[in-house]
Amino acid sequence: MTEGAIVLVSGGMDSLVAAAISLREYKPYFLHIRYGQRTEQRELKAFIDIADYYKVEDRMVIELTHFKKIGGSSLTDTDMQVPESLSKTGIPNTYVPFRNANLLSIAVSWAEVIGVKKIFIGATDEDSAGYPDCRKTFYQAYNQLIREGTRSGDIVIETPIIDMNKIRIIKLGTELNAPFSLTWSCYQNEDLACGKCDSCRRRLKAFKEAGVEDPLIYMDI
Amino acid sequence: MTEGAIVLVSGGMDSLVAAAISLREYKPYFLHIRYGQRTEQRELKAFIDIADYYKVEDRMVIELTHFKKIGGSSLTDTDMQVPESLSKTGIPNTYVPFRNANLLSIAVSWAEVIGVKKIFIGATDEDSAGYPDCRKTFYQAYNQLIREGTRSGDIVIETPIIDMNKIRIIKLGTELNAPFSLTWSCYQNEDLACGKCDSCRRRLKAFKEAGVEDPLIYMDI
Repeated sequence: MTEGAIVLVSGGMDSLVAAAISLREYKPYFLHIRYGQRTEQRELKAFIDIADYYKVEDRMVIELTHFKKIGGSSLTDTDMQVPESLSKTGIPNTYVPFRNANLLSIAVSWAEVIGVKKIFIGATDEDSAGYPDCRKTFYQAYNQLIREGTRSGDIVIETPIIDMNKIRIIKLGTELNAPFSLTWSCYQNEDLACGKCDSCRRRLKAFKEAGVEDPLIYMDI
Repeated sequence: MTEGAIVLVSGGMDSLVAAAISLREYKPYFLHIRYGQRTEQRELKAFIDIADYYKVEDRMVIELTHFKKIGGSSLTDTDMQVPESLSKTGIPNTYVPFRNANLLSIAVSWAEVIGVKKIFIGATDEDSAGYPDCRKTFYQAYNQLIREGTRSGDIVIETPIIDMNKIRIIKLGTELNAPFSLTWSCYQNEDLACGKCDSCRRRLKAFKEAGVEDPLIYMDI
């Protein structure tokens, strides 16, 4: 029997490629978490489209309300503005405080109950926006936390693309026939991608440098 | 200016004593998390009563829906039965998988946004029911996770009663005039405490051994 793996699928291109990698070895359990971010409806659609594409039966969609209450990020607080340039230094205001720790704890709770031992997340350290909860050392610490704080102690977070930059991720996704056309990356819009926010710019730049055509349609470029 | 501390206040006696300890030094931010447990209404009342008693203005109540979806615990799955005896070995079915990691991640997110550096939780290692997420080593690992995965890296989880047994906790709470009459410990009922579940039995036994009268009224003892 194939072993199972929970995959955190946000609907973006990194989690798509992490999912594509997991599917080579594991029976998938797709987990999507809405947390009050600006484009949550569009990201949910991307999740459903990707799960349908891969014919994944076991899926869970969770809604968190606390990030909107807590605020402090331009992704969850609409009074803050999403920056329209690639950040060079520091942590941009799109950082949702300790978000990935919150998301992983849900995945671990689910894994404990269904007896799954692997959790895939498409975090990238090399080419991330500087978010502290995307660092490789954060995931090492998380695995230690699981060893100490769970019943069996043997669930492991897998970060297969943590050392890849976006160009490498696009090339690998293309090799694996990952459906980039179904993903959503824009932080700002839900209809046409803005092409201007930090996330759109990173994506556009990477597709261009990878020599692959981005199948998304953008507003004004 | 007094520094702030977030206190996880479930409404039980351990978190009450942790709160009483924190109040000696810090300006309190009380956090209560409902997660679909059987007695969540009654626990919310206990939280409000305790927060009112201490005149705490900064409070946040969060509702999580995923533990009920995930199941696997008699506290969140009403088809499972809460055991009516003190468990001697192993982890009882009242264990909610990786619950405290979920709760702490919310507290850390809030702390990052409001700039608070301490988070108090009334976990007990010595006298707990054997839950893995109550172990001292779990909290050490959590502090490491915070160092790696937050913006400032300097938020610390404080577990002031981790080495105390329930008798010691009751004695300390009594010294601090902590209002035990406002707390709720029963896993089963919301009107009168059942006196039979694991949690009631632990509480009753500890009050008796501490030589302190338990101000709660029980059903059938």
